[in-house]
Amino acid sequence: MENLNSVIRRIETIDYNMMKKAQARLDSLTKPQGSLGRLEELAKRIVGITWNLNPSLGNKVIVTMAGDHGVVEEGVSAYPQEVTAQMVYNFVRGGAGINVFARHIGAHVVIVDMGVAEDLRIKSEGLKIKKINYGTRNFTKGPAMTRDEAVRSIEAGIEVVEEIGKVDILGIGDMGIGNTTPSSAIIASFSGLNVRALTGRGTGIDDKIFRRKVEVIEKALSVNQPNPRDPIDVLAKVGGFEIGGLAGCVIGAAVLKIPIILDGFISTAGALIATELAPVTKEYIIASHSSKEVGHKIMLKRMGLSPLFDLELRLGEGTGAALGISLAEVSIKILMEMATFTGAGVSERKK
Amino acid sequence: MENLNSVIRRIETIDYNMMKKAQARLDSLTKPQGSLGRLEELAKRIVGITWNLNPSLGNKVIVTMAGDHGVVEEGVSAYPQEVTAQMVYNFVRGGAGINVFARHIGAHVVIVDMGVAEDLRIKSEGLKIKKINYGTRNFTKGPAMTRDEAVRSIEAGIEVVEEIGKVDILGIGDMGIGNTTPSSAIIASFSGLNVRALTGRGTGIDDKIFRRKVEVIEKALSVNQPNPRDPIDVLAKVGGFEIGGLAGCVIGAAVLKIPIILDGFISTAGALIATELAPVTKEYIIASHSSKEVGHKIMLKRMGLSPLFDLELRLGEGTGAALGISLAEVSIKILMEMATFTGAGVSERKK
Repeated sequence: MENLNSVIRRIETIDYNMMKKAQARLDSLTKPQGSLGRLEELAKRIVGITWNLNPSLGNKVIVTMAGDHGVVEEGVSAYPQEVTAQMVYNFVRGGAGINVFARHIGAHVVIVDMGVAEDLRIKSEGLKIKKINYGTRNFTKGPAMTRDEAVRSIEAGIEVVEEIGKVDILGIGDMGIGNTTPSSAIIASFSGLNVRALTGRGTGIDDKIFRRKVEVIEKALSVNQPNPRDPIDVLAKVGGFEIGGLAGCVIGAAVLKIPIILDGFISTAGALIATELAPVTKEYIIASHSSKEVGHKIMLKRMGLSPLFDLELRLGEGTGAALGISLAEVSIKILMEMATFTGAGVSERKK
Repeated sequence: MENLNSVIRRIETIDYNMMKKAQARLDSLTKPQGSLGRLEELAKRIVGITWNLNPSLGNKVIVTMAGDHGVVEEGVSAYPQEVTAQMVYNFVRGGAGINVFARHIGAHVVIVDMGVAEDLRIKSEGLKIKKINYGTRNFTKGPAMTRDEAVRSIEAGIEVVEEIGKVDILGIGDMGIGNTTPSSAIIASFSGLNVRALTGRGTGIDDKIFRRKVEVIEKALSVNQPNPRDPIDVLAKVGGFEIGGLAGCVIGAAVLKIPIILDGFISTAGALIATELAPVTKEYIIASHSSKEVGHKIMLKRMGLSPLFDLELRLGEGTGAALGISLAEVSIKILMEMATFTGAGVSERKK
């Protein structure tokens, strides 16, 4: 595969001139100017990303990346590690949350094994095996992965997007027992902020496990000393394989001018690795929801993104991204299907 | 038609016992408990409203009620009055915002002429004529309508729901140049709060028109002295025909155990008339979005409702309600389609 740096150099800035044209069209439609608020912003952004004033978002894909985390042996999660693989089976059979959300919005789901701790005993068209390793190592005792594994996880994400091809919009989500712990560690590394202020309750842990989780992250940072000016180093030392894969999805989609819709805390951690490596990718990213995880807001702020909604979701898998895709789709239908004042014979505002 | 008070007496409380059963089922699904946040609340509420643990929301209708307002002669709106009728034509032809949103979520749109200032020169299956009068009177000079017209506007709304029949979910929206002015006057009447704090920019008025709008509402309240303990009096003195019709929709839907999804400021003003007349109707109402109109939050607070999202929408027509219906539908799909821990062979959380 092409070298990561050379892939990044192929990412262009989005088309701001086309966005102005989209605004002019939005202003000609039979509604008070700006009255569709953030949906108008969204339509413009998608026009800018796709360099297309007449886009359609019919072909929608959600990539859900799975991986395991050695750090779960420190007791940071409410669920046992085997649930990661069990949930992959659930995804393939169509019974998980993301399957329901994807069917609701008419999206295709692609599941990727980036580093599940066991070999999956199932084959399916919708399941890709890009396993970098059988889970990361316990990062309280040294790096979660080698630098080479970190680069390969990002490259695998780019490859997944290339294999999917030129779709209209891409949502990204995650599955990985314990993966809010590396996500908090990643934003702590980049921001230098206090770990406690960046750590949440994940799938629902009690006070005791929460205190343990904070200690574990503090120890990981002190043992590994991730370099915030080197995003690959951060990913290698305190990240995860699915997080690297999600970073790769963002980079791969930006190369192909595909809008990327984030889910919650973990997919945003992946996107953060991507934007630290290649700040231009920020222009391609749309934040769907505000997660209940406290570190999420800090990440989004760092990336200059403002989420579209807050339904107190904390499932992951890409469920919030699915709802964001549906909003993106209606925003484009507004741009493409609404009548103009002139066309509909409606009087414009008084001068 | 049956007397309004006797219709109201037929409204039952929702089924809280069935809601507990819905929560138990949600807790058995393959996700951390409560991790779908407000969507879980929404699914439970719909089960309670419909008295059905296995609901489906396939049959969706949005009722958009139109009416004109004599008070526009005071210069409170950025658009001329003729736009109300012109937009009704746009609705019937399918070119307006609500048509795009309704198609996106697979809902049927029913347009109702509750009091447009002119006779509509169009016939369509999706357009109902329930015209109470040719616009309200200018309420700075006396009541907007007679008490009899107010009652008849509510009854017409009930009749519209009866004619539509037993659908799965009902969104309500509005069209009426100038109708943020009566909506602000209604919440000012009930709350006794300062008019300026309850008045917004409507379709986009400047500072000068805004000051005029506040004065107009203050004058209307002082000339008419609406009685906050008599919601029909408030509607008659400072309301509108489409607002009365929307109140009737809420009452009619509650009788039939149909969930009602509000849109923004004006549909919420209608719902407020309904909940002041019949507090039990609150149990049937779901607030979709938080409007940019400042009075909207005060209304929702008074009704004990918390909106699902805020996309800075201020178009009306039922556009926000459409997005709320889509969220309601995905919440029910979660309840009905997700696998259980036992069914999918996924390990439950550690004890």
